[in-house]
Amino acid sequence: MATLVMQALGCDVAAVNTVQYSNHLGYRQAKGPKTKAEEISEIYAGLQQSYLTDFDVLLSGYAPSAEAVQAVGAIARDLKLQASTKAGSFFWGKGKADDTIVLDPVMGDDGRLYVNENVVPVYKSLLKDADLILPNQFELELLSGVQITSIETLVEAISKLHKEHRIPHIIVTSVHFAEFPSTVSVFGSTARSDLSPRLFKIQVPSIDCYFAGTGDMFAALTVVRLREAITNAGLTERRRWISPDDVPCTDLPLASATERVLGSMHSVLTKTKEARDEELEKMSGPLGALDKEKDSEKRLHLRRTKAAEVRIVRCLKYLRDPEVDYKAVAVDLSEDPSADVEELTEDLAAAT
Amino acid sequence: MATLVMQALGCDVAAVNTVQYSNHLGYRQAKGPKTKAEEISEIYAGLQQSYLTDFDVLLSGYAPSAEAVQAVGAIARDLKLQASTKAGSFFWGKGKADDTIVLDPVMGDDGRLYVNENVVPVYKSLLKDADLILPNQFELELLSGVQITSIETLVEAISKLHKEHRIPHIIVTSVHFAEFPSTVSVFGSTARSDLSPRLFKIQVPSIDCYFAGTGDMFAALTVVRLREAITNAGLTERRRWISPDDVPCTDLPLASATERVLGSMHSVLTKTKEARDEELEKMSGPLGALDKEKDSEKRLHLRRTKAAEVRIVRCLKYLRDPEVDYKAVAVDLSEDPSADVEELTEDLAAAT
Repeated sequence: MATLVMQALGCDVAAVNTVQYSNHLGYRQAKGPKTKAEEISEIYAGLQQSYLTDFDVLLSGYAPSAEAVQAVGAIARDLKLQASTKAGSFFWGKGKADDTIVLDPVMGDDGRLYVNENVVPVYKSLLKDADLILPNQFELELLSGVQITSIETLVEAISKLHKEHRIPHIIVTSVHFAEFPSTVSVFGSTARSDLSPRLFKIQVPSIDCYFAGTGDMFAALTVVRLREAITNAGLTERRRWISPDDVPCTDLPLASATERVLGSMHSVLTKTKEARDEELEKMSGPLGALDKEKDSEKRLHLRRTKAAEVRIVRCLKYLRDPEVDYKAVAVDLSEDPSADVEELTEDLAAAT
Repeated sequence: MATLVMQALGCDVAAVNTVQYSNHLGYRQAKGPKTKAEEISEIYAGLQQSYLTDFDVLLSGYAPSAEAVQAVGAIARDLKLQASTKAGSFFWGKGKADDTIVLDPVMGDDGRLYVNENVVPVYKSLLKDADLILPNQFELELLSGVQITSIETLVEAISKLHKEHRIPHIIVTSVHFAEFPSTVSVFGSTARSDLSPRLFKIQVPSIDCYFAGTGDMFAALTVVRLREAITNAGLTERRRWISPDDVPCTDLPLASATERVLGSMHSVLTKTKEARDEELEKMSGPLGALDKEKDSEKRLHLRRTKAAEVRIVRCLKYLRDPEVDYKAVAVDLSEDPSADVEELTEDLAAAT
């Protein structure tokens, strides 16, 4: 997913596959090899010996073990070191860590999340080198130690990550407040020089379906669109692509990048939902018979999961030219936080 | 290369990576793991258990060992069997076998070709199940046992493969006759029901540079364009997509597919050559200094190889919408073969 998205936007990609599974884990079963940590390092050594490591951006995602997470971290540090004499010439985006930190929720029984305790400290130790992280709400809680129940606690968690790990750019990919199930909020922030957050939010209609790979799609679109926005703003030579302190949150390159990303995502997922619903419709006949078969529930899950595969190859145009545009709005921290919650509440109600 | 090309043309691809090298072998060095034969089989078993094997087309390419070639062959046979009740519903294109049968010429010393004797018989044993093969001139010689020195011997080799292995579709991807270095001919044939060839040829200007991955690009474009042409011709339910005997060679879906493929290839490689020449130009300064360094020849080769990387991600539009159109012409076997050679000689001279 991430490779194709970046290629469709015109990037040459050197992909290191950290696993080679037959399918994504939404199917609840998969076969195929994991790439060993030493193989990941070996591939990178191969790129080095042929002088093929002049990357502008590293996007990392799922890695199948603590050792593999460490091997990816070592690559990131080496690329940073190599670029250290030329500010802004290399950027590391850490994609959603979902599958690394947390076994996919669908894999566990009764919907509980299982944390791989082995990986969390390793993952945390790499945060200081990341230029951008894209956690979801749960991961943000895990990384910050703050439980997100309100805008206030969300701001607290983001501030903590800016300060404690000096991560300049943070996007929280999906924040749900139970009261507003039909809307998802994306929050983003680029730290000021005093490490205080500059927080914006973008609300998008929620699509009621689980699509696998959307975290990778989001992360891949974001690093490419961010580089584009940084280039447009003439900030490519700024250390870690951090905007000057006088840039307001809604004018951040991170904000305009996220607006375009969400436009693409919305079109691709809307098309996917339509195609999925058609598939499910067509399925209704044979599934009647299937229901009586042994293992019919499992079979049904497999077919439903396949029907919901993201329709990416037929939607490349929406990646290149996002049609809709969601606008970033400021989350003003100087105001009374409860007022801000109220404001968001109104926004969400209006969007619903 | 093959995965991206097919995705850019709108195909959902389940890619099984038979190796995960840091770079292609044109660099004369690479690191990274080979996928074991049993891992290839395991990935396929994973697709099977989740009912994800409803493929229209299999495109196979390089495999790193005789066992891996066999594992790919077993997948192809299983998919054929699964589709056997529904003619035309599955098609196997065997991509260029270059790297499987023959170590890349640049890897051997003094330009000799090294044949992996271990792989050739395995590869040959799979030919009977392939619907399309795309050998180059050297591979055609190896597979047919006929040395290609003329149109006559070329026709002999293709006829032999149609007859002996019952391969319905053959494209010989690049035929060079020493007298005409600036032109490359592509020959193709779809067998008639008596297994006689229906041969067409398409001449394209040759681009004087070695580009890695063009065999995979050609094969990937061809299977997609062939399926499109077969669909347009209403032949999707024909066994092995074989056109009726009364279809002349230049009206074959294989011919119109190849025309479009060569149009795309020519644009992508022309753009690549331009970009490469610019890179080499820019390089001329630093390379002067480099020349005096130890290992300068190797370093020079690495930089030149990188400069010649196919500019595929910026050229996806030429894959989707080929701009130029090379036309297939008949190679008439009923005529005096020497006359045909003369005719081609004139064509080639005109093209030059």
